[in-house]
Amino acid sequence: MYNFKNDYTEGAHPNILQKLIETNLSQQNGYGEDEYSIEAKKIIKQHIQNEKASIYFVSGGTQTNLLIISALLQLHEAVISAQTGHIYAHETGAIEALGHRIITIESMDGKITPSAIEQVLKAYSMRPHVVKPKLVYISNSTEIGTLYSKSELADLYAFCLQHSLYLFMDGARLGHALTAGNNDLTLADIAQLTDVFYIGGTKNGALLGEAIVFNNPSLVPDFDYIIKQKGALLAKGRVLGIQFLELFKDNLYFDLAAHANKMAMKITQAMEANGYSFLTYSTTNQLFPILPKSLIQKLKEKYLFLEWKEINEDYSAIRIITSWATNEHIIDEFINDIKQLKVLITKTI
Amino acid sequence: MYNFKNDYTEGAHPNILQKLIETNLSQQNGYGEDEYSIEAKKIIKQHIQNEKASIYFVSGGTQTNLLIISALLQLHEAVISAQTGHIYAHETGAIEALGHRIITIESMDGKITPSAIEQVLKAYSMRPHVVKPKLVYISNSTEIGTLYSKSELADLYAFCLQHSLYLFMDGARLGHALTAGNNDLTLADIAQLTDVFYIGGTKNGALLGEAIVFNNPSLVPDFDYIIKQKGALLAKGRVLGIQFLELFKDNLYFDLAAHANKMAMKITQAMEANGYSFLTYSTTNQLFPILPKSLIQKLKEKYLFLEWKEINEDYSAIRIITSWATNEHIIDEFINDIKQLKVLITKTI
Amino acid sequence: MYNFKNDYTEGAHPNILQKLIETNLSQQNGYGEDEYSIEAKKIIKQHIQNEKASIYFVSGGTQTNLLIISALLQLHEAVISAQTGHIYAHETGAIEALGHRIITIESMDGKITPSAIEQVLKAYSMRPHVVKPKLVYISNSTEIGTLYSKSELADLYAFCLQHSLYLFMDGARLGHALTAGNNDLTLADIAQLTDVFYIGGTKNGALLGEAIVFNNPSLVPDFDYIIKQKGALLAKGRVLGIQFLELFKDNLYFDLAAHANKMAMKITQAMEANGYSFLTYSTTNQLFPILPKSLIQKLKEKYLFLEWKEINEDYSAIRIITSWATNEHIIDEFINDIKQLKVLITKTI
Amino acid sequence: MYNFKNDYTEGAHPNILQKLIETNLSQQNGYGEDEYSIEAKKIIKQHIQNEKASIYFVSGGTQTNLLIISALLQLHEAVISAQTGHIYAHETGAIEALGHRIITIESMDGKITPSAIEQVLKAYSMRPHVVKPKLVYISNSTEIGTLYSKSELADLYAFCLQHSLYLFMDGARLGHALTAGNNDLTLADIAQLTDVFYIGGTKNGALLGEAIVFNNPSLVPDFDYIIKQKGALLAKGRVLGIQFLELFKDNLYFDLAAHANKMAMKITQAMEANGYSFLTYSTTNQLFPILPKSLIQKLKEKYLFLEWKEINEDYSAIRIITSWATNEHIIDEFINDIKQLKVLITKTI
Repeated sequence: MYNFKNDYTEGAHPNILQKLIETNLSQQNGYGEDEYSIEAKKIIKQHIQNEKASIYFVSGGTQTNLLIISALLQLHEAVISAQTGHIYAHETGAIEALGHRIITIESMDGKITPSAIEQVLKAYSMRPHVVKPKLVYISNSTEIGTLYSKSELADLYAFCLQHSLYLFMDGARLGHALTAGNNDLTLADIAQLTDVFYIGGTKNGALLGEAIVFNNPSLVPDFDYIIKQKGALLAKGRVLGIQFLELFKDNLYFDLAAHANKMAMKITQAMEANGYSFLTYSTTNQLFPILPKSLIQKLKEKYLFLEWKEINEDYSAIRIITSWATNEHIIDEFINDIKQLKVLITKTI
Repeated sequence: MYNFKNDYTEGAHPNILQKLIETNLSQQNGYGEDEYSIEAKKIIKQHIQNEKASIYFVSGGTQTNLLIISALLQLHEAVISAQTGHIYAHETGAIEALGHRIITIESMDGKITPSAIEQVLKAYSMRPHVVKPKLVYISNSTEIGTLYSKSELADLYAFCLQHSLYLFMDGARLGHALTAGNNDLTLADIAQLTDVFYIGGTKNGALLGEAIVFNNPSLVPDFDYIIKQKGALLAKGRVLGIQFLELFKDNLYFDLAAHANKMAMKITQAMEANGYSFLTYSTTNQLFPILPKSLIQKLKEKYLFLEWKEINEDYSAIRIITSWATNEHIIDEFINDIKQLKVLITKTI
Repeated sequence: MYNFKNDYTEGAHPNILQKLIETNLSQQNGYGEDEYSIEAKKIIKQHIQNEKASIYFVSGGTQTNLLIISALLQLHEAVISAQTGHIYAHETGAIEALGHRIITIESMDGKITPSAIEQVLKAYSMRPHVVKPKLVYISNSTEIGTLYSKSELADLYAFCLQHSLYLFMDGARLGHALTAGNNDLTLADIAQLTDVFYIGGTKNGALLGEAIVFNNPSLVPDFDYIIKQKGALLAKGRVLGIQFLELFKDNLYFDLAAHANKMAMKITQAMEANGYSFLTYSTTNQLFPILPKSLIQKLKEKYLFLEWKEINEDYSAIRIITSWATNEHIIDEFINDIKQLKVLITKTI
Repeated sequence: MYNFKNDYTEGAHPNILQKLIETNLSQQNGYGEDEYSIEAKKIIKQHIQNEKASIYFVSGGTQTNLLIISALLQLHEAVISAQTGHIYAHETGAIEALGHRIITIESMDGKITPSAIEQVLKAYSMRPHVVKPKLVYISNSTEIGTLYSKSELADLYAFCLQHSLYLFMDGARLGHALTAGNNDLTLADIAQLTDVFYIGGTKNGALLGEAIVFNNPSLVPDFDYIIKQKGALLAKGRVLGIQFLELFKDNLYFDLAAHANKMAMKITQAMEANGYSFLTYSTTNQLFPILPKSLIQKLKEKYLFLEWKEINEDYSAIRIITSWATNEHIIDEFINDIKQLKVLITKTI
């Protein structure tokens, strides 16, 4: 069985493990004051072209989201998110557990627009009987594989600035967004067009780790306290530093994401060649093809994936995720299986 | 200008003020251990026919809701509410500030059904990546004036018991529900068909005060701690005890609510007689008539009320609330004004 | 039995009840937008000589303390309080429930000094592994009856400003402090020498109510949201407004407190005349006389009071509290009883 | 410079890194459902001789402490800890940030006794005006290197059971406790004499990771939700599973701790041989020798350690920590340096 369920089924890119071994017995300061973390932050600052940014490494995505939002908001301030947003759909109420309402926006493509936010602001105007919308949470790529263009992001940030809203980009799959064929954003653009974002490691070749970037550190002068208080400060911070040191040395981070996207694109092309459509338009590593249920049953004998949504009596959408570790031979085999099975199914009918 | 904006524009029923004066210099224990509070609880227990219930008096509705929900839920447990529910629409995120998500149900009549809850349970099944629905919050009468029938409530409670959900009824306007023409519930029924509910005083003739009733006290053995910790324990608890002592002595509570409903019914009949319809079917003290905008403009010269919702270019729904203190002469005048203004408007056109 | 246990055993000063009756049927805006609240705030601003202050009325002391501290601090910021501070000793962990540590200072007289705070700052310097002290909580009069002098308060505030600490004065018994024989502070001084304080109503003749004063409103631009979210916004805010309107019209607030102090002073003098000493030096309405246990036993037959602390085999300190409602005849009787009982006890021995 | 500051200056035991490499490309379920985590839990259950225990792997100590305490307590319930307890002294108010007061006990040896708890219960009896003590937090070995004996732990647990208190043992350095010369406890004993404890990996050879053991899982049926909600659920849970799989296969965990203790014991003997005493009686890997300040200055030229506490004008206590990675040659050199420097200093004087 080959697993397409997510992008964290394998361990880490071998360079990272190699570096862990090489550095293992070097005595280092704890709590992120080690030389690898310091060096990794330096390299990331060069990538984002912002020497003044504050960078912090923590373990995972939910932790990252709750730390950032906790740092930026008071209890009566709320988050605006797409209904598909990870913080709303998959994080066990972590944001509400901090005390904040998430106001959701229904969105076909998983993205948020200024006009949708405007509606929220209008609906939440009866001060003080309602919460105060204060932070806009977006994901890039989104939870359904779509992307923000540079102009979309610029418009969104301009709107946020104008309405005293923070803009926070969840970059759990930022690498996949930035290496997609139709992307026109750079890391440096994102650092200019958001208040805070993070660069996801876990879903792009790290054992664990996300890099939080505050573009203007004066927003959160006490973030170190918050990381520690929430239990997110690793004693051996070196482990996180080494992940990002290896990923951002020599462009590995982008190469890994590009591979995942390329594998996904091969599947996309094969699906289209076989006449199958998609639930969402994805150019990244998450695909939602709509397939005959009979074909899905057959595929399940060899492959693991999520059955996402029933479309009608005969068709369902499934979710397939590729990653830095996806084996191209398997993709070819999968494509071939699709083709063969299609023939078989057609015959059966 | 006469104010129809809400049911708390006047002070308290005179009996309550009289009792405050009579008892003023009697030395009493603090923190609800006074003899008036003790007596009031005794009388309420007789009304609900449950000697074992635990009763607590606190100041207001938002406070009540947050105390009860805080006592019953752990952080990863969520509340299910209609989208119109007071806790979702008008309480500044008080429940989220405790750490709980409110999962909303869209509902035309402001009420919740077992089948709607079933949908929620299905949508929140991906443990542990989603919150755990654990408490169903309903209001009776609802925020849009509607009522639960006995069979509806019985079905809802049976469903909740079966699915290990708590059922909590917000009774900010419970008096108005129980004295509505089409009501078939009693206080004793409610004590049997919910886990916890409260009897609203503020909106039915008290200076302040809500009576929380836990039908089975073993659910919340430490509620006294929670009241104190959240700043809801009045040093002079006598003030709250006296409100409920007067309201529940000699049926005053029900008489006051019946008056409010009767005043509303007069308006309803007049509206219908003039050919106007309503946004919601209300037999209680909140009305949402749909009126010509020109008529609304004229009414605004003499009356205060909320403009609730635009219906189309010519019509809007307004909200009118009557109360224990509503003067019947004013109602007659208002009805007459409607009739006159209708003629006037028709002529103008 | 006459009750000396606390200063909230009776109802309210009759003027307040009278005003409630007079204004009862006047229709008023809810949520503190009534004309009585507006007028009361105006008068208080004159007293404190700060037109720019923000004033809010809420129900009780614990609620007040938690609202203020919640508004001012982030989760990793801590409160410094005397170990006897009400927030530490009597409020069921309300401050910790908000998420903040209370760092306590042992203090013989219930007061806090700059040098004691300096010790705390030193002990909490290992950032980010410890919380960040950020707010100094003091009570005036203190929980053991003592007072801050003007120079003490000025020194404390200068220290706080220098170290970026907020200074918050709990004034549950502020009237008793300001009318004590040895007091040299005014309300206007306090408004200049703290960031925020409150004027206690409940313990000085109100049915309920505390007046929160932010001397510089820009500190807490969203305090209205916080009051609502924590369930502290009364629908009939008029009830609170009327308390303070009556208390601050014609100096009633100070007259009531002066009476309580005068009654306490009569007891103090009698105790001293009989050779009894005190646990703390109080010139306000809380006394802690040290009495023979045999005398205490006799007194308990006629009076209610707290047995505070055992001193040795033969003596204990008790706590006696007088109030605006304390009857001078009873005080005279109590003093006479002390004298008589002392003779009796001496004979017995 | 050689670093004795803590037991997390190096990476991980090589076996762990080797296993990460071996298993790297095996596709595994996320969120701790991988085969390594499952196997590791199985082995730990054998060690503790409790097949029914629930075991969870998380990243670090502060995270572990806050997860467990959050799961067990309601907001009005408090923790009892020694003043030296890690949750009180070094975790940035993480427990208070959950909403719980930590009630501290002053203790010379860092341990808690039933009689000290009894004092706390007495001091916190004025329900509902004070928090309710509900959980006793102990560390073994303690933050100052001391140990609980089996009879001490048995007495403590019996007391806790009798008073409905939970007993939670922080085992950040549990390996060092269990392999100390004067230890008489086993892992199985601890599983019987606590409600919950954790086995620390980070300070004993893991890259990261602590193993939480609930001896009776019915205490916390929803712990999986809590781990996820607090951001502590690693997507690649395999990373944690592999740490404990290697540590508990073939007794590595105990061997590593025994090495650290042996290195510490060599230092202890050398200190004593040179006539130096200790601040605390430690048989584990944390030592607090009291040395002449002149000697400390000299040592600082070659070694890193904490200056812990000034004893008098001439002497201070320092803190030295050894670990699984401490090089015996360095220890010998350090011992020799002490000896040489002592002679040198003596001559100088």
